[in-house]
Amino acid sequence: MLTRNLLSVNVPCLRGFSSAAASFLRTGDKLKLSRIFTSEDVLEYSKVSHDSNPLHFDSESARNAGFEDRLVHGMLVAALFPKIISSHFPGAIYVSQSLHFRLPVYIGEEIVGEVEATNIREQKNRCLVKFKTACFKNGAIVIDGEAMAILPAPAVEQANTSA
Amino acid sequence: MLTRNLLSVNVPCLRGFSSAAASFLRTGDKLKLSRIFTSEDVLEYSKVSHDSNPLHFDSESARNAGFEDRLVHGMLVAALFPKIISSHFPGAIYVSQSLHFRLPVYIGEEIVGEVEATNIREQKNRCLVKFKTACFKNGAIVIDGEAMAILPAPAVEQANTSA
Repeated sequence: MLTRNLLSVNVPCLRGFSSAAASFLRTGDKLKLSRIFTSEDVLEYSKVSHDSNPLHFDSESARNAGFEDRLVHGMLVAALFPKIISSHFPGAIYVSQSLHFRLPVYIGEEIVGEVEATNIREQKNRCLVKFKTACFKNGAIVIDGEAMAILPAPAVEQANTSA
Repeated sequence: MLTRNLLSVNVPCLRGFSSAAASFLRTGDKLKLSRIFTSEDVLEYSKVSHDSNPLHFDSESARNAGFEDRLVHGMLVAALFPKIISSHFPGAIYVSQSLHFRLPVYIGEEIVGEVEATNIREQKNRCLVKFKTACFKNGAIVIDGEAMAILPAPAVEQANTSA
C-alpha cells in the first residue's frame, strides 16, 4: 500500500526494473505491509539465524523476564523493512538501518511495517533514498529507526521520457 | 571466543542463567563467531523473511547492479550479533541495533561477527550493555554499528558470592 504526501517531489526512482508503467517514488510516500508472525516463523527464523534465545521458545523464561509470553525475534520483525523496500523496488541495495526495539512482539499479533521516503538524492542512474521506518501493533510503535537504500532508476526511465 | 582488555572493569552480568561457574562481562570484552552462509541459508531466510529481492537469487541481476554474484541478505548476516549475544547471555533482551552495510557478502565467504562491550550500566538486577558490533571478511568490515542489550544478572550471582 502506498500513500502520497501532496507536497511530495517527483524523482526518477522507478518501481520495478521491467515495468513500462513504472511509477515514481516521492518524498513523503509511505509503503506499508502487515504480517502476523507464527510459531513456525519463529522456529524457522531460529534455524536459519542460529538464534535460540530462550525468550523465543520458553514462555516461562519470557515471563520471568517481564514479558507476557515468548517473543518473536526483533530482527525477524525488522526484516519487514527490506522486504517492503525490495518488493516495491526489486534490486534495491540496503545501505544502512537503525533499529530501536520499543515493545515486544508476540506470536499471533498483527504487525504493520511502514517505510516513508524522507530524502531522495539522485546518484548517476540510481537514487539514494532515506526512509523513516517503523513497525506498529494496534497503533503503537514496536520498532522504529531509519534506513538508507540505493534504488535502481534504470534506463527504462530515459527511454520512456525520450520517447 | 572471548578476548579481554586488561583495563576492563568487572560488573555482575552473568553469562548463562544457570551456570554455577558463570563468568563476568567486562568493558573491552569481545565475543566472536564465524559463519559461512550457504545457498540454502539464503533460500531459507528468504522464505521466513518473505524477502525475495533478485539480488539474492539471480546472479545476472546482482552483476548488473555491480556485484560479483548474488548476495547474502544483509539482515541475515547482521543476525550474527543477537546470536552471539544471546548464546553467551541467554535471556538477553535486544534494545537497539544500528547497521551500516559496507561490503557485499557472497555465498561461501567466511564471515566473522564480533561484539565488543563498550559500556556497562547496572539497572536493578540487570545490566544495560552497549556493544560495538562488526562483521568482517578477510579482515575487512562488511557491517558495522552498535547494539544495546539488557543482560540478565540473576540471583545465581548473589547465591554464588554469598556461598
